[in-house]
Amino acid sequence: MTAHRARIKLRLEYDGPLVLGPGKAQLLDLIGQLGSISAAGRAMGMSYKRAWSLVEEMNAAFADPAVISNRGGTGGGGAALTPTGAEALARFRALELLLQTAGGDDLAALERLLKS
Amino acid sequence: MTAHRARIKLRLEYDGPLVLGPGKAQLLDLIGQLGSISAAGRAMGMSYKRAWSLVEEMNAAFADPAVISNRGGTGGGGAALTPTGAEALARFRALELLLQTAGGDDLAALERLLKS
Repeated sequence: MTAHRARIKLRLEYDGPLVLGPGKAQLLDLIGQLGSISAAGRAMGMSYKRAWSLVEEMNAAFADPAVISNRGGTGGGGAALTPTGAEALARFRALELLLQTAGGDDLAALERLLKS
Repeated sequence: MTAHRARIKLRLEYDGPLVLGPGKAQLLDLIGQLGSISAAGRAMGMSYKRAWSLVEEMNAAFADPAVISNRGGTGGGGAALTPTGAEALARFRALELLLQTAGGDDLAALERLLKS
């Protein structure tokens, strides 16, 4: 039951350009924890430019921004999740958890069909 | 409650190259119904080459092939789902259904956060 947790990941695809998957979810998580887009990106081994571009993609897809930030400045800027960002993250995590619990048997069965 | 069904799609991503999403699921479905890779691809508006390449991708990812086919020949060939292909499709559909039922509130909430 452990294997499929590591191997199968949820991605939600919308009819727009947004794909919400494990990467963007982790980025939101870390921005919330670290209060900084660059620190969050660094923790995931990605450049500030890449992290910023993922944030911009999310901010453009949601009706309200998911992340607010003060770029630069003497304090070096800072970032935080908005209520929209926090809710999107929580909903995504709830769906991941649902797949791993109620969907666990189906995921494990799919996992067993894969080449090992 | 109808809107998010149309807009949000499940994709399962593995640690290998396989991504199982709505497109491959529909292709498997149609191959099972129509008994032909080219007819299934045509029904989805894709070239035979594209349909065949998706089938090959799945056949390579699973321990057993998902689709067996007789290419060409006087009868024009034919294709069918193997037990692996049929089970993979059924498990994927079960997970989709789970998201739409037990996960329906979370999906609808995510939907509401999106720019309309």
